[in-house]
Amino acid sequence: MTSDRLPVRRALLSVSDKSGLLELARALAAHNVELLSTGGTAKALRDAGLAVRDVAEVTGFPEMMDGRVKTLHPLVHGGLLGRAGIDEAVMAQHGIGAIDLLVLNLYPFEKVSANPDSSFEDIVENIDIGGPAMLRSAAKNFARVAVATDPAQYAELIAELDANAGTLAAKTRFALSVAAFNRVAQYDACIANYLSSLDADGARSQQFPSQQHSNFVKVMDLRYGENPHQQGAFYRDLYPVPGTLATFSQLQGKELSYNNLADADAAWECVRQFERPACVIVKHANPCGVAEGVACGDAYELAYATDPTSAFGGIIAFNTQLDAATAKAILDRQFVEVLIAPDYDEAALAYCAKKANVRVLRIPHGDGRNNVDVKRVGSGLLMQSADIREVGRDELKVVSKLAPTDAQLSDLLFAWRIAKFVKSNAIVYARDHRSIGIGAGQMSRVVSAKIAALKAEEAGLVVPGSVMASDAFFPFRDGIDAAAAAGVRAVIQPGGSMRDAEVIAAADEHGLAMVFTGVRHFRH
Amino acid sequence: MTSDRLPVRRALLSVSDKSGLLELARALAAHNVELLSTGGTAKALRDAGLAVRDVAEVTGFPEMMDGRVKTLHPLVHGGLLGRAGIDEAVMAQHGIGAIDLLVLNLYPFEKVSANPDSSFEDIVENIDIGGPAMLRSAAKNFARVAVATDPAQYAELIAELDANAGTLAAKTRFALSVAAFNRVAQYDACIANYLSSLDADGARSQQFPSQQHSNFVKVMDLRYGENPHQQGAFYRDLYPVPGTLATFSQLQGKELSYNNLADADAAWECVRQFERPACVIVKHANPCGVAEGVACGDAYELAYATDPTSAFGGIIAFNTQLDAATAKAILDRQFVEVLIAPDYDEAALAYCAKKANVRVLRIPHGDGRNNVDVKRVGSGLLMQSADIREVGRDELKVVSKLAPTDAQLSDLLFAWRIAKFVKSNAIVYARDHRSIGIGAGQMSRVVSAKIAALKAEEAGLVVPGSVMASDAFFPFRDGIDAAAAAGVRAVIQPGGSMRDAEVIAAADEHGLAMVFTGVRHFRH
Repeated sequence: MTSDRLPVRRALLSVSDKSGLLELARALAAHNVELLSTGGTAKALRDAGLAVRDVAEVTGFPEMMDGRVKTLHPLVHGGLLGRAGIDEAVMAQHGIGAIDLLVLNLYPFEKVSANPDSSFEDIVENIDIGGPAMLRSAAKNFARVAVATDPAQYAELIAELDANAGTLAAKTRFALSVAAFNRVAQYDACIANYLSSLDADGARSQQFPSQQHSNFVKVMDLRYGENPHQQGAFYRDLYPVPGTLATFSQLQGKELSYNNLADADAAWECVRQFERPACVIVKHANPCGVAEGVACGDAYELAYATDPTSAFGGIIAFNTQLDAATAKAILDRQFVEVLIAPDYDEAALAYCAKKANVRVLRIPHGDGRNNVDVKRVGSGLLMQSADIREVGRDELKVVSKLAPTDAQLSDLLFAWRIAKFVKSNAIVYARDHRSIGIGAGQMSRVVSAKIAALKAEEAGLVVPGSVMASDAFFPFRDGIDAAAAAGVRAVIQPGGSMRDAEVIAAADEHGLAMVFTGVRHFRH
Repeated sequence: MTSDRLPVRRALLSVSDKSGLLELARALAAHNVELLSTGGTAKALRDAGLAVRDVAEVTGFPEMMDGRVKTLHPLVHGGLLGRAGIDEAVMAQHGIGAIDLLVLNLYPFEKVSANPDSSFEDIVENIDIGGPAMLRSAAKNFARVAVATDPAQYAELIAELDANAGTLAAKTRFALSVAAFNRVAQYDACIANYLSSLDADGARSQQFPSQQHSNFVKVMDLRYGENPHQQGAFYRDLYPVPGTLATFSQLQGKELSYNNLADADAAWECVRQFERPACVIVKHANPCGVAEGVACGDAYELAYATDPTSAFGGIIAFNTQLDAATAKAILDRQFVEVLIAPDYDEAALAYCAKKANVRVLRIPHGDGRNNVDVKRVGSGLLMQSADIREVGRDELKVVSKLAPTDAQLSDLLFAWRIAKFVKSNAIVYARDHRSIGIGAGQMSRVVSAKIAALKAEEAGLVVPGSVMASDAFFPFRDGIDAAAAAGVRAVIQPGGSMRDAEVIAAADEHGLAMVFTGVRHFRH
């Protein structure tokens, strides 16, 4: 598609981030590349003893309007856009010298607009005009011109120039062009998102901008999507939040699948809520066993015991370093798709290595969360702030005659944290900081309560003395009746039903303690 | 933030889409606005008898390189970027005339790159360089300059100029600036997505580009998100696919909520699969009743009968025009959040009007589907091609000794279409093209089978003689045993389990007919 290796004879450098600039410029000078530059970049190069020509000298037009206009000139853009083998005559006629390499980064709009101390005028002034124009000119003409937008690209560029007598390959120019267009798309998305979130008087007012532009970087293609006939890929944010799934490293195992990643996120986000060593087992997007323990080993044993059948082929996540004994306990007993932990001791990794297929992920701790969630619906997108609301003990309102004991309160909050990650309608039975039965994904709440009891019975676990969490209010008393019949002693739920009085009366009738959170956690 | 009304004295017009151009230019001329233009636009204006000055005359620099370089000049960009009250002196000194209005649309990159007949060279040539540069200059300088990017904006522009002696308000300039930056962000996103999907040799190779840039337009803010403590908004694609949810119009009722829209999409996509009149009732993201009928009325009755408890407060969708008798049957009997149909007869709408809170949506028929689905996971995005695979009768493989009858085959495919929309693990019992029991959202398949039977029993429906659909294979024979015990006579499922032989033997043992689809429909 493009002519192959071409020499770099003239380069234009204009960067706000000066890191790596001098090394690159010296390498270019060593290959006898003529350097053009502007303002601060030119000064930095001259101070380092390099010969530089000012763009203003090339254009014969001064930099003006506080830098608003300096490179928007046909002698610059003609130099970037002129086609090899076609435009030489017209370039010669108008004194346009070809530019073969552009090294440029943009005014820091992203940084300035994200800073709450920036004035509106400052932010607008940081909309780079000349920079994107040059990037786009150079990137369009990848057949002849190379363009670097990021100091991270310099080392490879220098290496290629040095190894090839000052020439760059067509593949390199094309890859740099794609990177440059991506950079411009990110930049313009940020500007449009910012401006779209303003009121007509420039005040920041809208949580959700009138248009929404998103940019993601591909991490990997997936073998397939949620099902084998669907194609899939995994992307990450430009700047992933520390502590979230996208920051994982895979230490061993088969390729991750679409469903692995979806379930891994649910397991990791659920387990990182707990302060004590905890284990969460996820199957089909739902936690099927959750427990806190003294260490990861007993947490796993207790989580597993909730529903051994569903745990088979599950995703198992820990919030503490995984030790060898626990790794052995898991791998000797059950088929596991993915193991997740913030770290592993060496012996644990050595044990995992014996089952080479098992995917082992390390996700370093960090205290960030996704703050925007999306759901795709027919040619539309539902956007929402993520459900990161936590309910503290002092927010609970006791509505029953009987108040929960301290131990029950502690279990209620534990069960509540699980219910948040169970698909609605969600019912969680728990006791002593372990799940006893989980009812998920039902259209009616009482069926979820029945499933939770059924699960506990199947697992041979004792419900009497347990607590129950419900992700949303009980529309009728039947869910309370079912729980009481199973032996539940305390209930946590949002409250807010038209029939709260009836539901509270049911709790009192059965001698149950009940608290309201005032917060709902639907998750569909 | 900006000075208020400012006169338009000089305008630069450069458009590929000439619609509305002459009306706008005449209106400008009537306000004594000097017109600058280039190439084809200048010719069109001259042909219409309007006085026009060529940009090349302003810059003193000819258009060159087949139009690659024509407006990238300080006399143009200085004219767009020069600040009122600051840059007048420098503009006068360098002969830069202020431009107050830019009317411009971009080379049709989107159209050309989407056309499979376009050559790579053509596509690259359609990357507009000068256009986005001017749009960005004008848009940055909204304090003084107005910019139109779309003929749809002209009428309002003319009206405002006419009503205000040739001046435009600061609010207008700012709104136009936001629209222009949004346009540029869309344009650059399309270029980056296209180039990112190419191999190093320019061949189209990657289904998922190395970076992904998405653009959405806000339809409305929502009262809240999935839960009251979350904020939410609904966006649509730039170009919504006909027949999908985003093309709805709301005929009456309360504001749509986040969960309404999510459930409406599931209900609508499920019901539009059927050729005969059909009704789908969705609750908590799952179908809780589905039926085909002779008309919408009996389809609703049969769908409702599957699970009257869950149908309460549900979303009800039809694939045919809704008549008054059915509207009355629904509204007199049950609480309904949303009604959806491709159309309504007048009497039906009149009846709905009596319950003013009920949300009534019209979604015109169309044969498009979303083709990309996304799921947000911790600082990442899972992208996949949408699950739009349909299974035809000739794809089914009979694996049992007994072959299904024609009526069973018909029911099996009906149940299969429902199972596709039920959260995994999904089990659907159906008979005579109506759902009998639906088991959803379980971590173990046999529990889903038990729930389906339980639901049928609760609703007083007769399972014996029904068929069963399972969205994924049976890992063990227990699901088949449970179904047979409930009276199921035929089974449809993907097959592909390690224990298929055991599962088939179970079907044969119970005298069941079983077919494999070879296709799985996980939906989480």
